[in-house]
Amino acid sequence: MRDKFIVTPWEVRGNIDYSKLIKQFGVQHLDNKLLERMKKHTGEVHYFLRRGIFFAHMYFDVILNDLEKGKKFYLYTGRAPSGPVHIGHLIPWIFTKWLQDKFKATLLFEIPDEEKFLFKDNFSMDDAKKWAYENILDIIALGFDPKRTKIFLNTEYAKTLYKNACFVAKKITVSTAKSTFGFTDSNNIGEYFYTSMQSVPAFLPTILEKRETHCLIPCAIDQDVHFRLTRDVAISLGYPKPATLLCRFLPGLQGIEHEGKMSSSESHTAIFTTDDPKQVHDKVMKYAYSGGQATIEEHRKKGGNPDVDVSYQWLTFFEENDKKLKKIHDDYKSGKLLTGELKQILIDKLNKFLKEHQARREKARNEIEKFMLRD
Amino acid sequence: MRDKFIVTPWEVRGNIDYSKLIKQFGVQHLDNKLLERMKKHTGEVHYFLRRGIFFAHMYFDVILNDLEKGKKFYLYTGRAPSGPVHIGHLIPWIFTKWLQDKFKATLLFEIPDEEKFLFKDNFSMDDAKKWAYENILDIIALGFDPKRTKIFLNTEYAKTLYKNACFVAKKITVSTAKSTFGFTDSNNIGEYFYTSMQSVPAFLPTILEKRETHCLIPCAIDQDVHFRLTRDVAISLGYPKPATLLCRFLPGLQGIEHEGKMSSSESHTAIFTTDDPKQVHDKVMKYAYSGGQATIEEHRKKGGNPDVDVSYQWLTFFEENDKKLKKIHDDYKSGKLLTGELKQILIDKLNKFLKEHQARREKARNEIEKFMLRD
Repeated sequence: MRDKFIVTPWEVRGNIDYSKLIKQFGVQHLDNKLLERMKKHTGEVHYFLRRGIFFAHMYFDVILNDLEKGKKFYLYTGRAPSGPVHIGHLIPWIFTKWLQDKFKATLLFEIPDEEKFLFKDNFSMDDAKKWAYENILDIIALGFDPKRTKIFLNTEYAKTLYKNACFVAKKITVSTAKSTFGFTDSNNIGEYFYTSMQSVPAFLPTILEKRETHCLIPCAIDQDVHFRLTRDVAISLGYPKPATLLCRFLPGLQGIEHEGKMSSSESHTAIFTTDDPKQVHDKVMKYAYSGGQATIEEHRKKGGNPDVDVSYQWLTFFEENDKKLKKIHDDYKSGKLLTGELKQILIDKLNKFLKEHQARREKARNEIEKFMLRD
Repeated sequence: MRDKFIVTPWEVRGNIDYSKLIKQFGVQHLDNKLLERMKKHTGEVHYFLRRGIFFAHMYFDVILNDLEKGKKFYLYTGRAPSGPVHIGHLIPWIFTKWLQDKFKATLLFEIPDEEKFLFKDNFSMDDAKKWAYENILDIIALGFDPKRTKIFLNTEYAKTLYKNACFVAKKITVSTAKSTFGFTDSNNIGEYFYTSMQSVPAFLPTILEKRETHCLIPCAIDQDVHFRLTRDVAISLGYPKPATLLCRFLPGLQGIEHEGKMSSSESHTAIFTTDDPKQVHDKVMKYAYSGGQATIEEHRKKGGNPDVDVSYQWLTFFEENDKKLKKIHDDYKSGKLLTGELKQILIDKLNKFLKEHQARREKARNEIEKFMLRD
């Protein structure tokens, strides 16, 4: 069972072996050489990169080549709304915001409000739209530059998207979609067509601005498969291949082995951006999978295992300070830090982050229109 | 070979047996009983109906039931632009205009400018758009009421259409699309999705006006297959099933047995709405398949065969006067009327029609915006 895992844009299950995934998806390891080249432009290496949270890429080397020639890129990422945003969703967006700041880059943020409708039973387009605008608050709360960021719902920007999606769709056979996504004849024709709607923003500004602009997509690794198709199509349409920077998933509270990523549908294993301090406290205390020992005595003697401890793992995503994190790691491993204490460090960290996020999230209600792109 | 024919929305070939087609497509014969019920509202029976040019239907009886209860319907038809309009294209539109006049009905006229792009090699979306606006001139020239007629290009109305198309698409599997259209895994995902874009106008006003309005679609019989899918989907979406009134095809100049319908791609066998009198004369004289005999003497003796004579067949579409038509039929059959004379009657008829059409077509250039619906 340890080795069995599934990663598709619609399903992530099992204990993911990310090294295997790199091979399986045919993507590249994001190595130090690339990070050093990036650092020449950014001045620093984001801790998501240092810690291998963003661990893989496609064509990021081409983005760096372009940068070295003075050529800019734009950013593209997205969110398919189906419910509230949890802290796992924020990871690629936090990184995207950092990239925007460092490179003064334009960002297209797609909200494919038809995707979950097409792929899920009992989920309405109206619900998708309601969640879309709730989720947009979380996006804006992260501090994206309104002058450089365009957010759009697919159904509200369809006049632009649909026509361009047809260019993509013409080049993708059902046979290709089957082998790429594992679809069968029982999937609906909307599911098949959908990937072409996700492709469009990867070359859209090139069309809009009539110039060769390279697209860089920071996202979780499960999404690269869409852009693999986009790359095949882009060349024949005369556009550059979109590049990706790919991250791993924040595990759910029940741990890495229990589930591949945090899931909104198992609400007790996820921390939502709207959770209050007590909810965060109670969920972490009750459900966070512990790498500690059965008794305090045993823990003091043998120490804990940070590699499987969810609280520690989460801190690798949320504690920016390397020194602090190392001390937590070492203290936990030596048995000096107890599971309850470690959990409390995480709770304090999350609640501090969420308090600020929630304040910005409320403020965002009046800022939505500054960001929206509609036909 | 006589019995071999193919009728799909994308291919019409062979000598079509329309009685067989009714069974094959699972549609109904448009019988006199229905025409008599219709006449109570229209006061007359259009000669396309009397002559079996419109010969089949689905759910037209339901439209009549509704009418008898005082409930209105709206009309929907379309044109996929890929080149100039020929006189065969006009047949369902002329009839649609008659229905609009008789019932003061709203008409949605879809111009799916992505369809031919998706289905044809070497045909660009830009060309489709260019032809769309050329074709719209022909539509307007037929005299549709600008207050009751909305024409839209799919790419320009996609904000409304795409979202609604997703409702349809979710209910149609690839398996269903394969068995309905004869697609394989080699067809592209845009071809598969397309039918859902053609479905939408069959229930769109119901959405827009939030009331139960029945849709009646006058079209050539090859299109019914799209609406068969729409009917299956409509019920589960809570909309009434769209009704169709189905016509046969105007044959090409080379005759009924040579080709199932007039084709723009074989320009010498088609009369375009922009052809000048000399072109019409020359094409008919040179190419119109004759039911006459090899020599004048033989023709005088044995008479001609109006059933296969293209000039006569075309006159059944364009000569409104039953008495005149019967005389032509009888004179040709008896040998009194020679092929050259019959051709001249057709040429005069067509050139008179086209002269007026072309004048209205030029005038239409200033009227386009009165008709267009865009997001």
